[in-house]
Amino acid sequence: MSFSLLAELIRKKNNPTVMGLDPKLEYIPPHIREGRGVGEALFEYNRALIDAAADLIPAVKPQSAFYEMYGLQGLQALDKTIRYAKSAGLYVILDVKRGDIGSTAEAYAEAFFGSDSAGADCVTVNPYLGSDGVLPFIKAAEKYDKAVFALVKTSNPSSGELQDIDCGGEPLYMRVAKLTAKWNSTGRCGIVAGATYPAQLAELRRELPSSFFLVPGYGAQGGKAKDVALACDESGGRVIVNSSRGLICAWMADGGDGRDFADRTRAAVIAMRDDLNSAIKNKAN
Amino acid sequence: MSFSLLAELIRKKNNPTVMGLDPKLEYIPPHIREGRGVGEALFEYNRALIDAAADLIPAVKPQSAFYEMYGLQGLQALDKTIRYAKSAGLYVILDVKRGDIGSTAEAYAEAFFGSDSAGADCVTVNPYLGSDGVLPFIKAAEKYDKAVFALVKTSNPSSGELQDIDCGGEPLYMRVAKLTAKWNSTGRCGIVAGATYPAQLAELRRELPSSFFLVPGYGAQGGKAKDVALACDESGGRVIVNSSRGLICAWMADGGDGRDFADRTRAAVIAMRDDLNSAIKNKAN
Repeated sequence: MSFSLLAELIRKKNNPTVMGLDPKLEYIPPHIREGRGVGEALFEYNRALIDAAADLIPAVKPQSAFYEMYGLQGLQALDKTIRYAKSAGLYVILDVKRGDIGSTAEAYAEAFFGSDSAGADCVTVNPYLGSDGVLPFIKAAEKYDKAVFALVKTSNPSSGELQDIDCGGEPLYMRVAKLTAKWNSTGRCGIVAGATYPAQLAELRRELPSSFFLVPGYGAQGGKAKDVALACDESGGRVIVNSSRGLICAWMADGGDGRDFADRTRAAVIAMRDDLNSAIKNKAN
Repeated sequence: MSFSLLAELIRKKNNPTVMGLDPKLEYIPPHIREGRGVGEALFEYNRALIDAAADLIPAVKPQSAFYEMYGLQGLQALDKTIRYAKSAGLYVILDVKRGDIGSTAEAYAEAFFGSDSAGADCVTVNPYLGSDGVLPFIKAAEKYDKAVFALVKTSNPSSGELQDIDCGGEPLYMRVAKLTAKWNSTGRCGIVAGATYPAQLAELRRELPSSFFLVPGYGAQGGKAKDVALACDESGGRVIVNSSRGLICAWMADGGDGRDFADRTRAAVIAMRDDLNSAIKNKAN
């Protein structure tokens, strides 16, 4: 789906949170792992997390690496997770960070958006190859009514090694941001910008007043709600904030056995929602 | 494997060619597709291509996108292809161009190199996230005796949009090249530099005299043997040149039915080998 469905779901749930579904085996409560193969355990936990939070959140974001690492059974669990999240009315952002030459980018776009795909609404892409690597995704997004988030300023500690390099008076990430403005001509290319770099987040919002922002780095990585608020547009919208471990590992916080994971995840989602909304409201006032 | 096995196989076969295994369904001769499901057809063609060329080439490079686009059956074919190529004594470069934050990069590295993986010797990675996104692959490469090629100057038409941006007197790709020199401290990080940009290829070799170069862009994309020769080190080595369509689609060149694909692929491999070796020899003289 284009971003309009995402915006609508954020409004309806009054929550700009996307739950990152990155279920390493050690994040899954023992009573769910027990007696199940890896793929089955991953899917069962995801299904239970979606059941626990679907009325509170607009979206989920599975990170492909955590499924690929378990081989074909992991990928089967990813496929089932995407289909289940869609059936629960959620927007699905598939975090794959792909980027390749034209013919290959077309193949990836078909893999994630095509009629045989599991039906994710949106993928993340890497801009290092330039337009050739991104436009096939945009084209496929138009064909199948989907969308794309391009990496601009990532949340990790070393993101500045390339992204902050000075390119004649502006950092590389700003040059990439300007490219994404072109890629967004039909409203299907948002950006990824981390909550861990708040000054850059604010600067990027000034440059791209109407782009959708996917903001990782809240919570476990150190980003705060007031940082995230800087990513919002003038009306406090067009932003979706990811938390993975903060939500799906909430049951692990105090050494419990995980039987209450659904309640713990709900509580963490509600706390995050209220934290974000309060900071966004403060910024607007 | 580290690059020593690759170097040894190149010497032994007297051939710096890697056969790109990017088997779109339409590249597969009708008599092999007939009566087979997609995954089975992909693997059967790859197996036949490997049988046809294994005595002539040191390595194969499956491009993950062309398997991912066919879903789980495609990924199963990829897994079987990697295992078959290894059993045929070939070095396997898995072209995935991944790059992500630390914990995620670790998951990918485990997916491709870990004990449950199909056993590729090497993967390609994207440097946009900086060291955090690459070092987990290097670390895993050390653990499992593998190697990594980082994208520096890609072969596609728009590669300059980011990679050629002037960063205080040198292009971005040169800054990335200097980072790869650090990542290569244990001899496990080569670079990707396209044959379609020969001046940059020569400049990169001067900067990185002892790095291994993976060179795409020969043949269908327009790169010539004399361009590729610029990537060689002083002794004419440390370079592996990819061709995909030029080899695996050789049977399609004159409208034949593909029953002679094995002979056509062998002939194309031999022609490419001789073309490359002659240009490399000319450069050395």
